[in-house]
Amino acid sequence: MKNKAALLSLLQGKMSFLLTAHIFPDGDNLGSLMALRAGLLKLGKRVQVTIDDSVPAAYAFLEGSQSILRPEMVNNDYEIIIVLDSSSIDRIGAVQNLVKQNIPMINIDHHISNTGFGTVQYIDEQAAATAEIIYQLLLDLGVALDDNIAAAIFTGIATDCGFFRYANTTPRTLSIAAEMVSHGAKPHEISDAVEMRTVPVLKLLSRVLDSIEVSSNGKIAWLTIDQTLLSSLGANPEDTDGFINYARYIRGVEVAVLFREVPDRGIKVSMRSRNNFDVSKTALHFGGGGHKLAAGCSFDTQMEDAKEQVLAKIREQFEK
Amino acid sequence: MKNKAALLSLLQGKMSFLLTAHIFPDGDNLGSLMALRAGLLKLGKRVQVTIDDSVPAAYAFLEGSQSILRPEMVNNDYEIIIVLDSSSIDRIGAVQNLVKQNIPMINIDHHISNTGFGTVQYIDEQAAATAEIIYQLLLDLGVALDDNIAAAIFTGIATDCGFFRYANTTPRTLSIAAEMVSHGAKPHEISDAVEMRTVPVLKLLSRVLDSIEVSSNGKIAWLTIDQTLLSSLGANPEDTDGFINYARYIRGVEVAVLFREVPDRGIKVSMRSRNNFDVSKTALHFGGGGHKLAAGCSFDTQMEDAKEQVLAKIREQFEK
Repeated sequence: MKNKAALLSLLQGKMSFLLTAHIFPDGDNLGSLMALRAGLLKLGKRVQVTIDDSVPAAYAFLEGSQSILRPEMVNNDYEIIIVLDSSSIDRIGAVQNLVKQNIPMINIDHHISNTGFGTVQYIDEQAAATAEIIYQLLLDLGVALDDNIAAAIFTGIATDCGFFRYANTTPRTLSIAAEMVSHGAKPHEISDAVEMRTVPVLKLLSRVLDSIEVSSNGKIAWLTIDQTLLSSLGANPEDTDGFINYARYIRGVEVAVLFREVPDRGIKVSMRSRNNFDVSKTALHFGGGGHKLAAGCSFDTQMEDAKEQVLAKIREQFEK
Repeated sequence: MKNKAALLSLLQGKMSFLLTAHIFPDGDNLGSLMALRAGLLKLGKRVQVTIDDSVPAAYAFLEGSQSILRPEMVNNDYEIIIVLDSSSIDRIGAVQNLVKQNIPMINIDHHISNTGFGTVQYIDEQAAATAEIIYQLLLDLGVALDDNIAAAIFTGIATDCGFFRYANTTPRTLSIAAEMVSHGAKPHEISDAVEMRTVPVLKLLSRVLDSIEVSSNGKIAWLTIDQTLLSSLGANPEDTDGFINYARYIRGVEVAVLFREVPDRGIKVSMRSRNNFDVSKTALHFGGGGHKLAAGCSFDTQMEDAKEQVLAKIREQFEK
């Protein structure tokens, strides 16, 4: 990382930090934020964390997650902004309004599609998760790891590589995870918190599995979750995180898509690929982001329109 | 391991090996067998591998798995038997007929409930999988690891700790996995092979999730798969491996049970626990085996009778 020395001296020189990450927060996003927050606090810094979204209940176990602010609650006391795990600046939503011309903005990310925004970039596309980068950063800053930091980093890593099942899992990914467990991270407690479901969610899953459609060539599979289905079972949109993997793990399928209706926010599209299909290209085409094997985008249109556009684009990419 | 020196010299002194493991073979069972087989072949030994059961198609990718023999096909050329991953001798089924008084039988296992059968025991209850023990054994024997051995060991470890999500996942578990990836194991290919499903299996899952029952205190959840359901969807009993985790991951549930009707073999019961409930005790009571957090047993009776007995026993254990 050519900018690392500059980044470290910048971080060391500032006292008051604003940390943020993308909307629709996930395990890597929140784990990275909480690990970096804890590390900076240990160095005697002042830290505010903000996300323009609510934090899913599954991640309430992360130390510090209760202190995440909505953008409008952030006070003016910050000299530097750090944006984590966000491929482009618009992914932080209304937190963009807190960006100031005269203070540096650091862009720390592992997405191949990162646009390179910000004053300093620390992008490592080889990292399975932004949490891997944060781990190294904390070591470089001389932060002593503890069980809370270890749990946050393990959470970020494990959730972004599907608990060490995706192609982004490297020896380094597993070695850092091993070190986090030796520092007190408890894989079963983290997995329990992140993957725990309720009977209504399992009933929802049962219904969603019944919705599976597969393209005639067997290479694309997709799932549909509309608001009516969610409401009828008393489930929340974030309860469906991970459902996409059922489509991904169908024999012969190369691209899996989940179409999810989110109240007042249109259609959220998640895509997962196996092998060589680059879903970040598909996502970027529709103004979204991600990396080769996992990406997403959003639509303001109706479900059927979003489906038609996305599936057509994927078919077109296959033909190239 | 106090017997390790004796074990190593015993293995080094023999030329012709018979390896076996428990019926209802799983990832650890097969991964351990294939890794040990490959290692012994590298040392110039002759090796036969036998299991008294068919090998699930999901594990066909393991190098050497095509050479696994049914017990009746084993020829008489073996000077030593090694039994892997089996808590008691009856777990190897008809392979018991191949045990001879005058040749040593080695018992290598990680189950807490291991009965200590055999002439030499190498039991490590701290190991997440028998494959962890095999890894160490191959190092001790001076075997150079290659990508096939690495894949076999990774498969054994990953499948027995739920891809690093169960409480048995230690820093050592993750470190060995990291080393296996650096030796060429591909987590995504292994996960794809092991977890890949077909649309009929997902339809089956959809139906099984609809069968979930939870005890009135919310601590026990169980799933039922009868032969009619399996046949109507064209699915096999082994397609339902892992379904039990849906019951295990219900908020508040401490013991999950899967009751599965296996053609001509009665009812197979799998149990998973979180926290402190020891399901190996329940399994042992019914002549089965396993470890604290994952165990199983079988019944020759009807489904309803098996359910009644197992659920009553679990309730009784809770009261203690």
